[in-house]
Amino acid sequence: METVKNAINEVADSATHEEIQQGPLTPSHDTPYFPEERVGWKGYIEWEKAAKVLAQHKFPHPPEFQLEPLPKTNPLLEGEFVKSEKAKDMLHVLDFPYNGEPPRDRLVTNPITPNEDHFVRNHSGIPDIKEEAYFFNVEGLVNEPKRLTLKDLKNEDLFPRQSNTVTIQCSGTRRIEQIHLYPGDGDELINAPWSEGAIGTAKWTGVGLKKIIKHCGGLNPSAKHIEFIGADSYFKKGQVTNFAVSVPWKKVKSNEVLLAWEMNDKPLPKIHGFPLRVVVFGYIGARSCKWLTRIRALSEPSMSPVQRKEYLYFNQQIGKHNATYNSGFSILDMPVSSAIMTPPDRAVIAHSGSIKLTGWAYSGGGRWPQRIEVSPDGGSVWYEAPWEKVSKKYYHAWRTWEIEVPVDAEGWLEFVCRCWDNALNTQPTFVRSAWNWDLHVTSSCHRIFIYSVNKTRPRYGQAKGVPLEPITRPLEFELEDEAEYMAEQEKRGGRDPEE
Amino acid sequence: METVKNAINEVADSATHEEIQQGPLTPSHDTPYFPEERVGWKGYIEWEKAAKVLAQHKFPHPPEFQLEPLPKTNPLLEGEFVKSEKAKDMLHVLDFPYNGEPPRDRLVTNPITPNEDHFVRNHSGIPDIKEEAYFFNVEGLVNEPKRLTLKDLKNEDLFPRQSNTVTIQCSGTRRIEQIHLYPGDGDELINAPWSEGAIGTAKWTGVGLKKIIKHCGGLNPSAKHIEFIGADSYFKKGQVTNFAVSVPWKKVKSNEVLLAWEMNDKPLPKIHGFPLRVVVFGYIGARSCKWLTRIRALSEPSMSPVQRKEYLYFNQQIGKHNATYNSGFSILDMPVSSAIMTPPDRAVIAHSGSIKLTGWAYSGGGRWPQRIEVSPDGGSVWYEAPWEKVSKKYYHAWRTWEIEVPVDAEGWLEFVCRCWDNALNTQPTFVRSAWNWDLHVTSSCHRIFIYSVNKTRPRYGQAKGVPLEPITRPLEFELEDEAEYMAEQEKRGGRDPEE
Repeated sequence: METVKNAINEVADSATHEEIQQGPLTPSHDTPYFPEERVGWKGYIEWEKAAKVLAQHKFPHPPEFQLEPLPKTNPLLEGEFVKSEKAKDMLHVLDFPYNGEPPRDRLVTNPITPNEDHFVRNHSGIPDIKEEAYFFNVEGLVNEPKRLTLKDLKNEDLFPRQSNTVTIQCSGTRRIEQIHLYPGDGDELINAPWSEGAIGTAKWTGVGLKKIIKHCGGLNPSAKHIEFIGADSYFKKGQVTNFAVSVPWKKVKSNEVLLAWEMNDKPLPKIHGFPLRVVVFGYIGARSCKWLTRIRALSEPSMSPVQRKEYLYFNQQIGKHNATYNSGFSILDMPVSSAIMTPPDRAVIAHSGSIKLTGWAYSGGGRWPQRIEVSPDGGSVWYEAPWEKVSKKYYHAWRTWEIEVPVDAEGWLEFVCRCWDNALNTQPTFVRSAWNWDLHVTSSCHRIFIYSVNKTRPRYGQAKGVPLEPITRPLEFELEDEAEYMAEQEKRGGRDPEE
Repeated sequence: METVKNAINEVADSATHEEIQQGPLTPSHDTPYFPEERVGWKGYIEWEKAAKVLAQHKFPHPPEFQLEPLPKTNPLLEGEFVKSEKAKDMLHVLDFPYNGEPPRDRLVTNPITPNEDHFVRNHSGIPDIKEEAYFFNVEGLVNEPKRLTLKDLKNEDLFPRQSNTVTIQCSGTRRIEQIHLYPGDGDELINAPWSEGAIGTAKWTGVGLKKIIKHCGGLNPSAKHIEFIGADSYFKKGQVTNFAVSVPWKKVKSNEVLLAWEMNDKPLPKIHGFPLRVVVFGYIGARSCKWLTRIRALSEPSMSPVQRKEYLYFNQQIGKHNATYNSGFSILDMPVSSAIMTPPDRAVIAHSGSIKLTGWAYSGGGRWPQRIEVSPDGGSVWYEAPWEKVSKKYYHAWRTWEIEVPVDAEGWLEFVCRCWDNALNTQPTFVRSAWNWDLHVTSSCHRIFIYSVNKTRPRYGQAKGVPLEPITRPLEFELEDEAEYMAEQEKRGGRDPEE
């Protein structure tokens, strides 16, 4: 697995990117290094084979993401699925691999996220697989290894169809808050600087993985984990592999793992894993492998770098020199969390005594948001979102919410939200309380600053054309006039105390 | 007083700055609007007279400081005193009016600040007054109005000479912390975005103002305040006046107001008020008027805009539309405060179990820093700076300090300092606790982030050439190797719990 990286390191500094692309294996720009390995599977490379070939060639150093702009398009597929399948105003958090989240106000307008608004966290290009060419293998510690096609899965005589409303959340959601406070530690430059939108909820339709395993004669007793291997690639610290992760068999047995071909009653979009993806309920999104190509029953968790070296939750106060992969624990169930989605941070709100906020709340592992609270004063007084304004409960989905919070004060105010789940878990108070090396799971109380302008105050509207917004340049803005000042001073007994 | 501003507003948009400078009163670039009003007083304009003349002419709008760069040099004196009197590496917080503070590590190397390192907060250009041409008037509610020269003051038969070690602090010290959290409210763009260096301590030599008043036959019983008028100009919201402020007679009677001509046993630098300045002990720096030209005894605090509309402490939660000058109170005594000066914020420190910090602590009003404490964990555990490492006590000066704080943890740590003064006052916990419209007096506990690298940890130095600093680009940094990982997993009983 180290071979690709070694090859990359040995590149001659004088070799241009152009020359490399035209290297010995590729006589013209039109011929890729690896012709499709399977008919109808465009953009799919089996990296265990590919790494051996690549090791013989020279490549440029990985880019310094901080210093160079990222490529504007998806080098593998020129962004065609980003353009055709996602909303035009998605926030492109990373161009390649494509990572995007929807505009914050729209994310919570519907408890079910429309497909074009659902966040995308990909790890490389988007494999384009023809439905009729698609199959996956079930192998490893399974009693009867099998190859299955989508047609087999859709055969209701073989497998009962199943639909579940499930929230998928990236463990990087709200990572930007950790980056802003403590820049430059962890891997945030290769991962995406997510805001509050790396979460989405859909009705997924497919077949429970438990049924597939049963169809394959069940497992050898030593099997404890089920590994999923995707047709996409995964780059990490100079290694390239196929994306691969595993979940405990226990999780599959509880029927909390779905192989899905429909998202909100529509065929799975290419960018979300067409023809078939895994949906693991209540877990970190990274386990919901897309473009599924192999399922392997194992006695141990997957040895893939995605599983072994990523998505680990580290101790706060350990430097990278003393950190070990062993000292981080795997992020599986997502903890309770929430976010304010409107108004946006730093908004100026002119109101008549209350401000409306909307947001989402979620808890993984089959737990659900039980109560959502908002504080208008940094976390001292908390108001509960009324139950009529909190969306329906699911075992495995978020709830969107709305609340009118009483506000009398003017000027800058700090609004905070937190969620209590049905297990009585709530969120850590500050970003610092949960900051961790590698910047995963920013689940502390979400905070925004609002500039409050109270229309019920006597002087509202007497602003002589000066905007309500905070001052950003030296405007002439007088407070009271001289006569008023003097009269008031007299009433107040002047500036001095008595002798 | 409004006339100048009105004139400025009436400027024809087509008039260039060049044309304006060459207006009817100024036939060439070499002739200023106002020839020196007094022989030997270069750069001095008595604005009450000047405003009447200026009202007849047109001027450009004031610059939008956020959008245009500030002028690089002092338009009045071309920065000659900045260059000749201040250290070369001063941090120029504003170019004009010149505002500068020294580099943070040097500020606390000496409890007495060298003249060239002392911060400068000026309000316009620097008047250049010849010592032999210098005089000031004592007028108003004084029994025997008099004109005095520097020679008179230095006559020890008339006035006993006095030296005091006094800290002068701008109420804008550490304002940048308020700006960073809540940008765009208050006047921070016309005032300076001060860091921790808008404070300095000197031995000031001169004559107590109490003696001068006695020399002038004492005060009329209705006199309650003493006003100081400087030869410098003061621009605020379109008005131009001479800098003018007052202090209560009570303060003068306590002998806490000095008229000083020496700073650290050297003649007062031009930039610090030569030939004569006021030094008001324990008060906000703004009352220590420089280039003193008039002293007036008044029954009320000065009506000048500096005093009436500036240096006010406002309620946190009031928008600018409902703020009034009356609702802000005058900043006089400075509260207890402190700052960590080394290491700098965001430093990476490789240490062997403790980190050394240095800083200053100050309390106004004749109170002194009694105890300085540092917390290495955001404000939970506090360590006291040992008394041997805290500089000498004065009634009216800061104390510099040094402390070795035990540190075991690695990674990002939040260091906090606070001071307790002899009246048992201490500092507010967070910037928010003391945030205020107009951004004065940032006296909350000072916080810095340090990236701690513990040399006593077993893996220190095994970094394969990877720097100790936090990762800022995708470096190859492996934690443990595969064999080590597997061996440790086996020891720990694998990733799984028992069934």
